[in-house]
Amino acid sequence: MAEWIGIGRRARRCYGFDEIALAPGTKTVNPEEVDTSFELDAKLFRVPIIAAAMDGVVDVRFAVTMSKLGGLAVLNLEGIQTRYEKPSEVLEKIAKASTEEATRLVQALYKEPIKEKLISKRIEQIKKEKAIAIVSCTPANAQNFGKLAVAAGVDFFVVQSTVTTVRHISKAYKSLDIKKFCQDIKVPVLIGNCVTYGVTLELLSTGVAAVLVGIGPGASCTTRGVLGIGVPQVTSTIDAAAARDYYFKHTGKYIPIICDGGMRTGGDICKAFASGADAVMIGSSFARAKEAPGLGFHWGMATSNVNLPRGTRIKVGTIGSLEEILFGPAKVDDGSENLMGALATSMGSLGVATIKEMHDVEIIIAPSIQTEGKIFQAVQHVGMGK
Amino acid sequence: MAEWIGIGRRARRCYGFDEIALAPGTKTVNPEEVDTSFELDAKLFRVPIIAAAMDGVVDVRFAVTMSKLGGLAVLNLEGIQTRYEKPSEVLEKIAKASTEEATRLVQALYKEPIKEKLISKRIEQIKKEKAIAIVSCTPANAQNFGKLAVAAGVDFFVVQSTVTTVRHISKAYKSLDIKKFCQDIKVPVLIGNCVTYGVTLELLSTGVAAVLVGIGPGASCTTRGVLGIGVPQVTSTIDAAAARDYYFKHTGKYIPIICDGGMRTGGDICKAFASGADAVMIGSSFARAKEAPGLGFHWGMATSNVNLPRGTRIKVGTIGSLEEILFGPAKVDDGSENLMGALATSMGSLGVATIKEMHDVEIIIAPSIQTEGKIFQAVQHVGMGK
Amino acid sequence: MAEWIGIGRRARRCYGFDEIALAPGTKTVNPEEVDTSFELDAKLFRVPIIAAAMDGVVDVRFAVTMSKLGGLAVLNLEGIQTRYEKPSEVLEKIAKASTEEATRLVQALYKEPIKEKLISKRIEQIKKEKAIAIVSCTPANAQNFGKLAVAAGVDFFVVQSTVTTVRHISKAYKSLDIKKFCQDIKVPVLIGNCVTYGVTLELLSTGVAAVLVGIGPGASCTTRGVLGIGVPQVTSTIDAAAARDYYFKHTGKYIPIICDGGMRTGGDICKAFASGADAVMIGSSFARAKEAPGLGFHWGMATSNVNLPRGTRIKVGTIGSLEEILFGPAKVDDGSENLMGALATSMGSLGVATIKEMHDVEIIIAPSIQTEGKIFQAVQHVGMGK
Amino acid sequence: MAEWIGIGRRARRCYGFDEIALAPGTKTVNPEEVDTSFELDAKLFRVPIIAAAMDGVVDVRFAVTMSKLGGLAVLNLEGIQTRYEKPSEVLEKIAKASTEEATRLVQALYKEPIKEKLISKRIEQIKKEKAIAIVSCTPANAQNFGKLAVAAGVDFFVVQSTVTTVRHISKAYKSLDIKKFCQDIKVPVLIGNCVTYGVTLELLSTGVAAVLVGIGPGASCTTRGVLGIGVPQVTSTIDAAAARDYYFKHTGKYIPIICDGGMRTGGDICKAFASGADAVMIGSSFARAKEAPGLGFHWGMATSNVNLPRGTRIKVGTIGSLEEILFGPAKVDDGSENLMGALATSMGSLGVATIKEMHDVEIIIAPSIQTEGKIFQAVQHVGMGK
Repeated sequence: MAEWIGIGRRARRCYGFDEIALAPGTKTVNPEEVDTSFELDAKLFRVPIIAAAMDGVVDVRFAVTMSKLGGLAVLNLEGIQTRYEKPSEVLEKIAKASTEEATRLVQALYKEPIKEKLISKRIEQIKKEKAIAIVSCTPANAQNFGKLAVAAGVDFFVVQSTVTTVRHISKAYKSLDIKKFCQDIKVPVLIGNCVTYGVTLELLSTGVAAVLVGIGPGASCTTRGVLGIGVPQVTSTIDAAAARDYYFKHTGKYIPIICDGGMRTGGDICKAFASGADAVMIGSSFARAKEAPGLGFHWGMATSNVNLPRGTRIKVGTIGSLEEILFGPAKVDDGSENLMGALATSMGSLGVATIKEMHDVEIIIAPSIQTEGKIFQAVQHVGMGK
Repeated sequence: MAEWIGIGRRARRCYGFDEIALAPGTKTVNPEEVDTSFELDAKLFRVPIIAAAMDGVVDVRFAVTMSKLGGLAVLNLEGIQTRYEKPSEVLEKIAKASTEEATRLVQALYKEPIKEKLISKRIEQIKKEKAIAIVSCTPANAQNFGKLAVAAGVDFFVVQSTVTTVRHISKAYKSLDIKKFCQDIKVPVLIGNCVTYGVTLELLSTGVAAVLVGIGPGASCTTRGVLGIGVPQVTSTIDAAAARDYYFKHTGKYIPIICDGGMRTGGDICKAFASGADAVMIGSSFARAKEAPGLGFHWGMATSNVNLPRGTRIKVGTIGSLEEILFGPAKVDDGSENLMGALATSMGSLGVATIKEMHDVEIIIAPSIQTEGKIFQAVQHVGMGK
Repeated sequence: MAEWIGIGRRARRCYGFDEIALAPGTKTVNPEEVDTSFELDAKLFRVPIIAAAMDGVVDVRFAVTMSKLGGLAVLNLEGIQTRYEKPSEVLEKIAKASTEEATRLVQALYKEPIKEKLISKRIEQIKKEKAIAIVSCTPANAQNFGKLAVAAGVDFFVVQSTVTTVRHISKAYKSLDIKKFCQDIKVPVLIGNCVTYGVTLELLSTGVAAVLVGIGPGASCTTRGVLGIGVPQVTSTIDAAAARDYYFKHTGKYIPIICDGGMRTGGDICKAFASGADAVMIGSSFARAKEAPGLGFHWGMATSNVNLPRGTRIKVGTIGSLEEILFGPAKVDDGSENLMGALATSMGSLGVATIKEMHDVEIIIAPSIQTEGKIFQAVQHVGMGK
Repeated sequence: MAEWIGIGRRARRCYGFDEIALAPGTKTVNPEEVDTSFELDAKLFRVPIIAAAMDGVVDVRFAVTMSKLGGLAVLNLEGIQTRYEKPSEVLEKIAKASTEEATRLVQALYKEPIKEKLISKRIEQIKKEKAIAIVSCTPANAQNFGKLAVAAGVDFFVVQSTVTTVRHISKAYKSLDIKKFCQDIKVPVLIGNCVTYGVTLELLSTGVAAVLVGIGPGASCTTRGVLGIGVPQVTSTIDAAAARDYYFKHTGKYIPIICDGGMRTGGDICKAFASGADAVMIGSSFARAKEAPGLGFHWGMATSNVNLPRGTRIKVGTIGSLEEILFGPAKVDDGSENLMGALATSMGSLGVATIKEMHDVEIIIAPSIQTEGKIFQAVQHVGMGK
């Protein structure tokens, strides 16, 4: 796997979704009889696709709808929802801004302080609808927000940053002790993101309920473009899955790993499961749902790093209800709708009955170098808009 | 061939048409003296290019024309032709729909039930013209439609689904016993699609007349995008051909394999034969024929899977008669016309006299990463349209 | 070099210009002191870049100008120049045709029969200007046209077809005996095209003065698109050069090989020499010269194959005089002008003093996958035209 | 690392920025606590990013601003600044020229002779502002300009040409003796460019203060397109770093290497450091600063080679002040702004505290073949401009 890239220096070849495909086996299964469910801390969810904690994707209403459809949608505790009493007004402002103003506006809006009472309020709003409440924040806020969230009745707590390790070094502040945090807090903790076998194993040992996998997975990912950091998602998921299996073998505890980022189509989701994921976390596909608070837009978490503010707004449009995106019917054939139907059909065609069986499907290397058609489509798309 | 793609996981590198090329040998042959014929159940066809069972491609008239030109065109028993008494009206409606309406319209039109009497009628219409009648349906309808087709005088029967194996598992219904089906029905059966050595070998053992090879072959193929499933067509054809040769060696029966899908040009067709195909099956190239019922459009089989409805209409335009597409003269140099001329010229340049000799031609790996020119062409194409 | 591409089948990885680059060594040379000359049958030419026998590139005037500048331009004996008494009228008609009419017009114009007296006339016109006369035809016409050309005073004769081998098999006609042809004709013969070590060696043994190397070299080459045939030019040039060196070692005769096709820039030309070429043959770059008879257009040889007529006209534009294209000054930095300046500068930077020393320059593999910039340029190019 | 590319010929596979990514390790560091400083001849600079000696980038004002921000900006002694008394008038003329006129204009403007008194004047202008003065010229002018520069109070002197070796061969003139030059001149000398282990080692032995690494690094680089010469920058930087480390091990002298060229984003800069660079040299990113004299344009050094004049003007636009480009806040997320913030954040995420620790970060191979999104962006970018 390692190749020489210069004198005295080797590098490992890693693979992304576009470079692989799944190969059918010697049997097929009726897609209506496959089991897609995902288990998190002994609770079963029939939809193994989690909506990411992005402000253009998840608000209270979205979280409730997702929960009723059998899945999970993570509410961001550091975004618009907890900074503003009336988030819909703010979100409308973002949607209505011109392309030129948008980034600056987003950055400005995230300077408003987070209100602790809004943290409690949002969670209570979700729980009042008898939905699963799952929320997220960065390690710096975990201690404080965690207590508030638990008090408000949260079901799951996510601690998430671009790169999370057990050892964060700083003289300026005390970094989060993940193990202690998991012990103290009363609800299951999901943690991420990581990409390596070693770090996954360390995180699994801290008592978490799940590990999020994925750092700069796409070649055009912001993290890779801006920081140079990124591991293609197929390899990082396989590596993390290997750590999970090792941990299970030696402790008897099966802690799921969640593939987070880099998936754009139903096909990518299927490949993530084949790479070893127990669940996947998706952002932009859900931003296209009618229920998404972003009104057809989404953007990165603008204040995640004071050194490097981002927040570019991306237009994704609205294509249908969340139910249609998850269960169809699909109106387009690009793999962006009916994600669960795609997963079930893929499992059927591959002859597997459960997500765990998906982990053993044959993966082949099949680069998507055939760009000609895509370029034509891209160009025609512009042409059509005229 | 297998490379590490993550810890403990290897993947086989597979190849598609765009990644290979054919290398000339030490002799050349007069292209007018090569033999391109293809044998199916002891019948000889001079055109080894079969028109795929797509509603935008094959109707009665097309099937008759193709048969008279020395080839085969498969009529889809589950499409417009057997759902509507007057298919041309319906096809015109699809062609006239706006891009926005088209997918929805196609999906709606395929909800009309299939009429059994139309199955018989279409076959009889073909036979009345003394043409070869070859029809197809999915495994679920094979028993029923097969009897009707044979009664109506069909010559060949195709059972086709995205992924076909000998073992389909379902509690809800009884799956097709391919071996028994081949024994019971009175006409030769073609079956597919498959991609692996193992499944090809199993299918060959069921008594079929030919096996169709190809699942999600193109990198931009819907199956690969939506389901993540797909094997690049060069590798799958080589593997299936290896199974065919093994079967022949041990049984003395030479059962042809048909490369189905992923070919866009005459060059791709030549590469399919060099990969071991005895015949190829083509869709979109024939959709561009004057005789094609799609009037310059084609679309996927919209009802093939209730979990994942598709049906996006693609404009391909009409470039000439079927005879011109097969035998020229070519008016463009992109390899979309005069497919038989291209095949004969290629065979001559490669110094081979028969399709079987094509199987031994030297293949080289020569990726088409040179996208610059293609991008320019794509962009200029748009520019020209203004 | 060979990789598995399917069960029981290996393929050799071949390389094209876009995939390699040249690496500087431990010294540099003053570019004004390098020797770029090329020897053909004991005659020395300071310009090792030969203009290809294309009707949009070479007519009498172009051949004379090129000869005076120190190079060679091959006149096509089977094109417009020998079919029409007044070719400029015909060429103007092609240049003025609309994009829609052009291919059909080109195909029609090449149906006019070749006039033997025009063969003699064109050669005499060149010789009257005291220029080198070098002409070409296909193997079928070689015997007949060869005699006429020699009688008219030709200096070199080129026999050229897409794929040339020593053994061409046909029952319908007698194929050219290359060895006998070389012995009988009174002038040095250049022959091609071939791509392999074996065929190059066989051709070298027939008594030719030079061998042309290159079949379908570019990934977007018509031959590769239409016939599936093509060997990337770096590998084929290296292989042919190996045959030349072997032949020289065992016979003492150094017969040059000419890299023909696939080069678009000065950089590609330098890479061809580094791959072992003694000279290169160029088409489209020269079609952009003021002296080119195509008036800013060029097209394939329309009648080269009756099975597969081509003839698509491509607009290349006119960028400057032939002298400027060869010797500068360059007005653009894309490597299309000042080809000899680029060659000399490259040789200087690489620290080599002669073309033969270029054969030993270090080649590295450095794929040009960095398409982003190119796409932007392509798209902006369209944008700028508005 | 070496692969067969033809009979008897092997080539080394080299890697560029687009083909690699950085992988996080087992710890992270607070980005505000990392040390990015770079040491040149015992002087410390907190910004390890040097502005290249391009006329559209560096003039007196830019050099002063850069110096005050903690970095270095090299003034070109052979450009507009030393040919014209009032460079701003000339630069405005270039910026205002139409695309058609620009190249010709640039070429004409560089025919004006260099004035020695302007060399002194520019350096004195920089020194008067108490800024670091670093200037550059080609080897041919080094002796003469070097003396003038030192007399005027220069701090560092750069001798730079496309390909620099210790042995330059010419009968026409005496080439620069680098060792002697370094001994004679009173200030530290930076020299380049080179790409190999061997040449780097030879240059290090001449007494230079730093070596510039990079020849034709990008696949779309002019040098690679025009001359065929170029080594992808990751491999060349690793190789040069290996030479530096060898030299340090055997002499105890740590002489920095500067990665020059091919970096377009903060991510690329981070990758350069991970490849072993001690500092990087950047052109076009700085051309986008408000302080850049090119007014949103930049162009190659038009007179660097009389054989091959270049000078194509490229529009880059103006995005913010130099301080914003270096330290943010970033208004876009494409990695072109807040380069120092990106570097610090990347170092933090990778868990390293100094540039030297960056040299040991894990590099992975992760090709950016995922062009689809980029094409869409490119096309939409055009669409948006309408």
